[in-house]
Amino acid sequence: MRSTTGHTTTAFLDRLAEYDRTARTAARGYLADPDLSRHLLDPAGDYLDRNGKGLRPALCLATCEAFGATVEDAVPSAAALELLHTAFLVHDDVEDGSELRRGKPTLHRLYGPALAVNAGDGLAVLALGALRDNDQRLGRALSARVLAEFVFMARQTVDGQARELGWQRDNRTDLTPDDYLDLIMKKTCWYTTVLPLRVGALIGSGGQADLEPMLRFGFFLGAAFQIRDDVLNLVGSTKRYGKEPLGDLREGKRSLILLHLLAAASAADRARVEAFLALPPERRSDAAVADLAALVHAYGSIAFADEFAHGIARSAAAAFEEAFAAVPDSPPRRFVADLVPFMVDRDR
Amino acid sequence: MRSTTGHTTTAFLDRLAEYDRTARTAARGYLADPDLSRHLLDPAGDYLDRNGKGLRPALCLATCEAFGATVEDAVPSAAALELLHTAFLVHDDVEDGSELRRGKPTLHRLYGPALAVNAGDGLAVLALGALRDNDQRLGRALSARVLAEFVFMARQTVDGQARELGWQRDNRTDLTPDDYLDLIMKKTCWYTTVLPLRVGALIGSGGQADLEPMLRFGFFLGAAFQIRDDVLNLVGSTKRYGKEPLGDLREGKRSLILLHLLAAASAADRARVEAFLALPPERRSDAAVADLAALVHAYGSIAFADEFAHGIARSAAAAFEEAFAAVPDSPPRRFVADLVPFMVDRDR
Repeated sequence: MRSTTGHTTTAFLDRLAEYDRTARTAARGYLADPDLSRHLLDPAGDYLDRNGKGLRPALCLATCEAFGATVEDAVPSAAALELLHTAFLVHDDVEDGSELRRGKPTLHRLYGPALAVNAGDGLAVLALGALRDNDQRLGRALSARVLAEFVFMARQTVDGQARELGWQRDNRTDLTPDDYLDLIMKKTCWYTTVLPLRVGALIGSGGQADLEPMLRFGFFLGAAFQIRDDVLNLVGSTKRYGKEPLGDLREGKRSLILLHLLAAASAADRARVEAFLALPPERRSDAAVADLAALVHAYGSIAFADEFAHGIARSAAAAFEEAFAAVPDSPPRRFVADLVPFMVDRDR
Repeated sequence: MRSTTGHTTTAFLDRLAEYDRTARTAARGYLADPDLSRHLLDPAGDYLDRNGKGLRPALCLATCEAFGATVEDAVPSAAALELLHTAFLVHDDVEDGSELRRGKPTLHRLYGPALAVNAGDGLAVLALGALRDNDQRLGRALSARVLAEFVFMARQTVDGQARELGWQRDNRTDLTPDDYLDLIMKKTCWYTTVLPLRVGALIGSGGQADLEPMLRFGFFLGAAFQIRDDVLNLVGSTKRYGKEPLGDLREGKRSLILLHLLAAASAADRARVEAFLALPPERRSDAAVADLAALVHAYGSIAFADEFAHGIARSAAAAFEEAFAAVPDSPPRRFVADLVPFMVDRDR
């Protein structure tokens, strides 16, 4: 966590770590119930104890502070976000058959798919419990608005997940970058950036802020995050990034990188890619995956995605100024601004 | 649906079918969103289109009517219950590796586990959306109480599910009938009977009813239901019951029947049962399952469970009179009373 890049300062990383600690401690608190079985609590708590970045709760807490309330006002919401994010990770890993998460075996490999699926359900239920604590802290009206944001977000997320899994199931090879951007708005941006921003602003302003500009800023910020994630899956260090290398390629995930390759490849190379995608995932050999990775490099698909992410990050920086126009300068406001370059510079 | 048993009248079955139709239509309505992907909606709607009994929403709607409000007041809650029940079924089937549900292949066999897990998540999210409709119909205070009941119930259900899966994972053979009853209170009774009764009474009385006696009645009613379910898994007709025969035995499910067998068997036969349970599920042959079924019959374990269920049903009938003491006679009140014998007489 101490390494810095060109844009990322130690002050930013310290603040990120502090927000992460606050949200994670609160999230763990919702698991501290001796009445619950260890067969629920052990798997449900596992990913929380690994070294996540905590970007989502940090964005929510910082936005709340920047808009004028205290960190404490947004803690139950940030904890709910961390719990729900963890639930998504657990189910995602089952759905994708992933091997590694945050540098260790995925939950279904440690506990079997049955307890893993159930732990994901449990985390989602605990998130709802956390949101009920908003009634007391924020009053019933504002609490109901926060809950409505979460329900709408969860709807977008499961719909996006269905679309992505459907693309793989239907073996779609006719998708455009616009299809990809529509997908990640649903699958990634709502829960990673749009909801944290909207709920942070809602609580921070006591329900007064205009949430509309958060959609645009959240979309650009989340898209930059997701495209960087796709790039890290190909070029990142397993140690830092924590997932199995080339997992996305093996799964046939329709990332911007794969879409670029399909569009840019010669007829012969495109046929090779399509032949790979036509194989059932369990029949995609290491050699075939390495072959696909070589094509991705040869056609400049990673460089394309990287450039695309930096372009979107520039749009995010402009959208930030609009969304936070009425918000006076402060350390939390600067933290949110600094998140923009961090999304595309990060190596984990 | 037309067949009647000794206790079950056509009037009861007609009313059950009518409640079921009402709740199912409302539940389907929450899936009718053209913005959602067919990769979410098709699997999510699949079990809803099969021939379920609709016991849970019927109990909720009838209790609401019996306590003095209209069916319509409880429709969003009943729809949410049906959606959440369906979500549980989908995830249960994945977790247990079940083959058949309501006479057709399980969702994960039709769509693969990834889309099935996600469809279960989607159904839970849609259930939350249905509960938000209570704000307008019931007012925010009563709506929040209904939501709190659902969140508490979901917590019990995932905890019960974890315990049951944990028993199988730990290969526990030291369990007593009391352990079993504690388990099914969490795993089955909360969502099958306790919540429908409590939410029905809450809405029906405009928040005035004492919900405490519903716990006792719901426990006896739900336990009678679950034990009958365990019996049907062994002796039911696949056509009527709709699950693969002997699925519970194959999974090594710690049903009352299996616990009785472990307690009643001779040392030699108990060793055979333990050897079976020590096998990984995929290595339990048809012949070994049939062998176990023969032991279950030989030791009278099914007759024991059946008698146990009838004893619990008698307790349920007494607890009904306490829980509904203040409620005047009416067709919906009689429907709830008639549910008690139905739970143990049903063949599906």
